[in-house]
Amino acid sequence: MYTLGEIANIIDAELAGNANIEIIGIAPLSSAKHNQLSYINNNRYLDDLANTNAGAVIISKDVATKCKTNALIVDDVYLAFAAATNKFSNKTSYSSGIHHSAVTNNSTIAAGCNIEKNVTIGNDCNIGPNSFIGNNVVIGNNVHIGPNVCIFHRCIIGDNVEISSGSVIGSEGFGNARDDNNKWHTITHLGAVVIGDNVSIGANTTIDRGTIENTEIHSGVRIDNLVHIAHNVIIGQDCAIAGCTGIAGSTTLGKRCLIGGGVGILGHLEICDDAIINATTTVYKSITSPKTYTGIMPIMVHKQWQNVGLWLIKLDKIANYLNIKLKNLKEK
Amino acid sequence: MYTLGEIANIIDAELAGNANIEIIGIAPLSSAKHNQLSYINNNRYLDDLANTNAGAVIISKDVATKCKTNALIVDDVYLAFAAATNKFSNKTSYSSGIHHSAVTNNSTIAAGCNIEKNVTIGNDCNIGPNSFIGNNVVIGNNVHIGPNVCIFHRCIIGDNVEISSGSVIGSEGFGNARDDNNKWHTITHLGAVVIGDNVSIGANTTIDRGTIENTEIHSGVRIDNLVHIAHNVIIGQDCAIAGCTGIAGSTTLGKRCLIGGGVGILGHLEICDDAIINATTTVYKSITSPKTYTGIMPIMVHKQWQNVGLWLIKLDKIANYLNIKLKNLKEK
Amino acid sequence: MYTLGEIANIIDAELAGNANIEIIGIAPLSSAKHNQLSYINNNRYLDDLANTNAGAVIISKDVATKCKTNALIVDDVYLAFAAATNKFSNKTSYSSGIHHSAVTNNSTIAAGCNIEKNVTIGNDCNIGPNSFIGNNVVIGNNVHIGPNVCIFHRCIIGDNVEISSGSVIGSEGFGNARDDNNKWHTITHLGAVVIGDNVSIGANTTIDRGTIENTEIHSGVRIDNLVHIAHNVIIGQDCAIAGCTGIAGSTTLGKRCLIGGGVGILGHLEICDDAIINATTTVYKSITSPKTYTGIMPIMVHKQWQNVGLWLIKLDKIANYLNIKLKNLKEK
Repeated sequence: MYTLGEIANIIDAELAGNANIEIIGIAPLSSAKHNQLSYINNNRYLDDLANTNAGAVIISKDVATKCKTNALIVDDVYLAFAAATNKFSNKTSYSSGIHHSAVTNNSTIAAGCNIEKNVTIGNDCNIGPNSFIGNNVVIGNNVHIGPNVCIFHRCIIGDNVEISSGSVIGSEGFGNARDDNNKWHTITHLGAVVIGDNVSIGANTTIDRGTIENTEIHSGVRIDNLVHIAHNVIIGQDCAIAGCTGIAGSTTLGKRCLIGGGVGILGHLEICDDAIINATTTVYKSITSPKTYTGIMPIMVHKQWQNVGLWLIKLDKIANYLNIKLKNLKEK
Repeated sequence: MYTLGEIANIIDAELAGNANIEIIGIAPLSSAKHNQLSYINNNRYLDDLANTNAGAVIISKDVATKCKTNALIVDDVYLAFAAATNKFSNKTSYSSGIHHSAVTNNSTIAAGCNIEKNVTIGNDCNIGPNSFIGNNVVIGNNVHIGPNVCIFHRCIIGDNVEISSGSVIGSEGFGNARDDNNKWHTITHLGAVVIGDNVSIGANTTIDRGTIENTEIHSGVRIDNLVHIAHNVIIGQDCAIAGCTGIAGSTTLGKRCLIGGGVGILGHLEICDDAIINATTTVYKSITSPKTYTGIMPIMVHKQWQNVGLWLIKLDKIANYLNIKLKNLKEK
Repeated sequence: MYTLGEIANIIDAELAGNANIEIIGIAPLSSAKHNQLSYINNNRYLDDLANTNAGAVIISKDVATKCKTNALIVDDVYLAFAAATNKFSNKTSYSSGIHHSAVTNNSTIAAGCNIEKNVTIGNDCNIGPNSFIGNNVVIGNNVHIGPNVCIFHRCIIGDNVEISSGSVIGSEGFGNARDDNNKWHTITHLGAVVIGDNVSIGANTTIDRGTIENTEIHSGVRIDNLVHIAHNVIIGQDCAIAGCTGIAGSTTLGKRCLIGGGVGILGHLEICDDAIINATTTVYKSITSPKTYTGIMPIMVHKQWQNVGLWLIKLDKIANYLNIKLKNLKEK
């Protein structure tokens, strides 16, 4: 907990407002409460700014007049936000062995596990050897966790969940703010990962915690090995995601999507319910219709690929040379 | 061990045959014995059905008359098969530390390892700290296993094998049956992973166990870091597979294939001996000739890519517009 | 330490020179000293050969006359080099627990860690549970290492570094020499990984040690989860590399490059400062201009992709059929 005046000092902001109010955390404009800090670095959120209940907002000079609550005026909102996140970190510490507060009922915890403070573990769970469970993690009933698994602080796991060996749940998101000297400043991720019921997660998969809101894996989802799910992704109910796939930050998948192996889905996209993405396809725009999608370069004998490639990179010039207009290309 | 009557109850099947025979496991039609269960969910296997020695077959009504052994007639064969696999699971349990039955000869096992029951370890092996070896694993001579490695139950490792840190051998395959409500049902993978001699496996790689038969890595194979090898894949002798590659279920690689980094090979394919697949290529059809293959989108300045892409997705319409027929495109 | 005569025996070489000199290691021609061995298997390095200070050079018959120092003449230089590397290995052994020589000052080491001999750990570090630190590793100040991390022998980590759970630093590179029978021979990687200050490394990422020189991650670099960085790669200052990316051996990235997720960068390339590579692009040639690059197959409804693909693989034939010459394709 900090006073707003202390935060203004920490992030080197000009404070327009009450230095004495107490701030206990950070939240988005739309959900922040009177004792939480928020930020705006994109004019898309000006409506949220107008309606926010946040105790204070980190904001740039040009839109500061639109802020009706306390304002922390800075040159670079994202950098200041990064600095603020570092103060509200509640990262896992590492104690030794199994903290006495871990309620394990009839569940079993194998040798070599480290279970931190205030962990709740339901019935009929078993946790494989040398796994780590961070502070305040909540695990439901009938959860099976393999060896060498890591579940970081405050993550929530539902009932009947399987997490295979080597997977990491709740690692820090890959969010960094860059300053004028091109140096990176770490954003401490204050959200968690929330996993529903009947979820299965393969081996050596990673699911990052959210920035200030949570990353969510809804009930019934199946995730294969070596999958990377970035911060603030939401995976809808009963999706299946095959191995080696990566989903970048803040993308939302609808229900029952089938995502093939080696797929890359870029950030901040929306994939509708029941979309099917074939293996190794890159998804760089939102999907609004529940069809099957593919984006794969055909496989060729190497020499043929070299020949084709010479022309492929000049397709627009070929069209120009032939005087073809896009509008003249009718459906067959 | 279950009687066939018990299995019929478990998977909710109509039993045509002898309820009293004893079933001890599940196997493919072609290799199942009189005390094993099999299933058919694809008419491609009707010949195998005609010749099977299986004690019983899970089968749908429309082909049940072709079954000459005991039949378990169900609406959804794959779902019923999934339910049956769950009963024959022999998954790893987690005890504490090193089970006394592990024969270690002059091999060394580092601190923090968990070695389960009935593990056999040959001579001159060393197993890195905090690794896990499941029930009934067999490890040959001169095998070097890094820290935090996980080898699940019943996997077999040959002589002179290296497995680097964080790799997982014998994790459950990504096989799930979907019911009419689009809910996933886990298939317990009853096969194992069998690794030959002189194999080297990099760090954080995953090799899934087979469904009812084994996943096989033949002798002399080299596998890099962060590679995913799915259930029932067979990697032929002396293949080399570079980092970040994924190979989907039931694909077979011949001998001496060279697979570049970041390659995706889809499931149920056959790759012939000596094929070379360049990095990041997607292989979506079987390879029958030992050539070098490539399928990579050429790299372009982003703006150029945008221009080219506009035309690329209309190539078939361009051909139509220009009245080009595929048959008219001769070799140069 | 071996005499040159002993090495000649080990690698089955014809020795032209002094059998009695002592050899303590292996280095490139350009940096090898009088007590180090080097090798030449590419005529590009003939100038280095002419100027080398190496005590001896593994060399093939056809260029042996150009060697002014002691020569170890063999049929297959790379195979002989592989055999020599195996003799100078100084691989990690696994002892039990925390070796008394580990200087930890006010740093904390969580339960279950294995810290080998001659490890140096600075101030204000913490090392998560069940992590492994190999012989002679040097760790700076304020370094935070997650659970289940593995840092192999002789790697050097700067100040203010974060390494998340499950990552492996200093694993063996994927370097193998193939003999006439197509059998692979392991090259023991004698280099290490050197990581600068203010570096952040995500979860389940792998960074391989160099062959005889080091793999280098310069200061200020940010690396996400499930990234693979191969042997002898150099990542310039303040680069950011997103998840699921793989960078093959001996590639150098300049400063401040931004590498998207799922990117594949092939080996032996040079990427200039400030280059931006969009997600899932394959980089198969060096980048000399600091622009934004993309190479992604557009995503299409699957049926459309099938139609487009039919023509795409015949683009060169289409150009031929239409009598288009590359030189006639002007800029628009």
